[in-house]
Amino acid sequence: MISFRIEARSGKARKGVIETCRGKIETPIFMPVGTQGAVKAVLPEQLEELGAQIILGNTYHLYLRPGHRLIKDVFGTIHNMMSWNRPILTDSGGFQVFSLGPLRKITEDGVYFSSHIDGSKRFISPEISIEIQEALGSDIMMAFDECPALPCTLEYMVDSMNRTTRWAERSLAAKNTEAALFGIFQGGVDVELRKKHLRDISALPFDGFAIGGLSVGEKKEDMYKVIEETASLMPEDKPRYLMGVGTPKDIVKAVLEGIDMFDCVMPTRNARNGQLFTSKGILNIKRKEFEKDARPIDENCTCYTCRNFSRSYLRHLYRAGEYISPVLNSIHNLYFYLELMQKVRTHVQKGTVEDLYTEISSVYER
Amino acid sequence: MISFRIEARSGKARKGVIETCRGKIETPIFMPVGTQGAVKAVLPEQLEELGAQIILGNTYHLYLRPGHRLIKDVFGTIHNMMSWNRPILTDSGGFQVFSLGPLRKITEDGVYFSSHIDGSKRFISPEISIEIQEALGSDIMMAFDECPALPCTLEYMVDSMNRTTRWAERSLAAKNTEAALFGIFQGGVDVELRKKHLRDISALPFDGFAIGGLSVGEKKEDMYKVIEETASLMPEDKPRYLMGVGTPKDIVKAVLEGIDMFDCVMPTRNARNGQLFTSKGILNIKRKEFEKDARPIDENCTCYTCRNFSRSYLRHLYRAGEYISPVLNSIHNLYFYLELMQKVRTHVQKGTVEDLYTEISSVYER
Repeated sequence: MISFRIEARSGKARKGVIETCRGKIETPIFMPVGTQGAVKAVLPEQLEELGAQIILGNTYHLYLRPGHRLIKDVFGTIHNMMSWNRPILTDSGGFQVFSLGPLRKITEDGVYFSSHIDGSKRFISPEISIEIQEALGSDIMMAFDECPALPCTLEYMVDSMNRTTRWAERSLAAKNTEAALFGIFQGGVDVELRKKHLRDISALPFDGFAIGGLSVGEKKEDMYKVIEETASLMPEDKPRYLMGVGTPKDIVKAVLEGIDMFDCVMPTRNARNGQLFTSKGILNIKRKEFEKDARPIDENCTCYTCRNFSRSYLRHLYRAGEYISPVLNSIHNLYFYLELMQKVRTHVQKGTVEDLYTEISSVYER
Repeated sequence: MISFRIEARSGKARKGVIETCRGKIETPIFMPVGTQGAVKAVLPEQLEELGAQIILGNTYHLYLRPGHRLIKDVFGTIHNMMSWNRPILTDSGGFQVFSLGPLRKITEDGVYFSSHIDGSKRFISPEISIEIQEALGSDIMMAFDECPALPCTLEYMVDSMNRTTRWAERSLAAKNTEAALFGIFQGGVDVELRKKHLRDISALPFDGFAIGGLSVGEKKEDMYKVIEETASLMPEDKPRYLMGVGTPKDIVKAVLEGIDMFDCVMPTRNARNGQLFTSKGILNIKRKEFEKDARPIDENCTCYTCRNFSRSYLRHLYRAGEYISPVLNSIHNLYFYLELMQKVRTHVQKGTVEDLYTEISSVYER
């Protein structure tokens, strides 16, 4: 059970609060990704210190390992397992299952697939997805959807959208707990299909709505167009979530269009590759130019990494393959993202979020 | 510059304090190993929280990468580089160079070798070892020694010991700073050679003395015999350091014989392999039996890992290859070692250290 209220607006942008039984979430919010029951390289106490208010868990991964029944039986909830007491949003497993490509087979019932871990035969349906998410004790669950690989025929896309609508109804019917449940609309990069599917999905009694199937390889201009044309048509009084997006620029752009929630692996994955976000753009810590650079990653940053360590040392750690390299880089990048969201909220409050977009666009081209 | 005072004794065992300009070190002490300028998987703030009072850095590794001149020029000291303000002991590079085997050539001057990183030709002499350690800003430096691979002929061992004595004199002569410098005696597993070399080395004006060349593959009974026969012959008024040792049992055994200082990769390396130290012995977190075990690693432990996480979750993290698995396991194992040393000190104070040895031997066979 969640409630949502909007506290301020700036054009189409909104600043609000989602209240959950595990605490409040200030929107627009960024959710660090904890795929397998852990945010990669970052401890829960470090996430709290970073100010993370909600994290994301992946139903597909947790279903396969350690298994939702184990989590429920041994721990009660995934929060207890991973020692994270703030809210958790779980995806439906749909996106990961469809990413398996030839390993899966779609039927009206659900999806048959082979585990990427041991090849075992598995099946997820809307009902099973909800069962898993409820077993995990998710605070915000997502309806089971299909994210068709692009390009696909118009006929396939329409069939898929209609199936996803039926699956959305089945997801709602399967729900047995007080957890919130969000619906997802698809439609690829076709704005008319997107609007049609949004109408279908938003007619259902979900607690929030999400744009699915973007940032999956389409052109940036196509992604922006879909967001521009649909975000403000999503139900006004419910949280709006743009799944799997994105760069700092993408996020501020989507806030301008009225989006409230984001998740992305980019800050943690890029950290592990030595790509660090700064107020002046991406800094690649591998580069020779940082060999003797005693400055922090970002002189305007006050994260643990920047308060204590230099570019020169972080480059050394990266090159030496030290275990604390992904830790320190991930702490910095998550801090950057979470601080960006704090700035976004302040700018929406002040009515100046367009200025923030101009600023971030001047630094981040993509 | 250090000073050492003994505060309590229990048989041959001693409890004392080493004062350094970066703070005091309570002995008997365990030094976590920070080979390349970082303790593997553990941040300096976590080391402080664990109560680590001194860590070890490896001269060989830091010489090759990032280089002692870079550390001196960019940071002043290795402490500044890694954001660790407590004392650091550096080894001489000898042990690592000799471990290279066919890649190195020993002369009276020093040792020629090829870098394990890029194959480049390098040279370390007693003078260069001291130059490196002084550039790092080491608080306690070690004299450059040879650790002969066993078995070797009596003739080779005697030649090597005599060369190490000459290198010890050269190490002392090369010293230009106020940093402490410890001498190392060798002699393999031959007690008479060990005593002879200890006499030669302890005649030199070092600030402390170390047993080198143990725990390198010899039988445990041979190692114990050397410790039993030589530890109490080491200068009484200086710290006594047993290099590279060892298991919890080895450490308490050596304390009984009068040793004050230890370092070993075992707590951190074993952690990364899922082997966890507990009050009831080694726990291998990989094992199926822990799949649904909601208990902490050790019910008697109050480390961050045990306060927050279960065996079941830690097994999941290990199997999933999560980045926080080595972090949480290393925190636990270092806590175990550092808490063991706290117990050792308390037992020496109370005159009951034999009881602790009996207790630890009943749990740890080796």
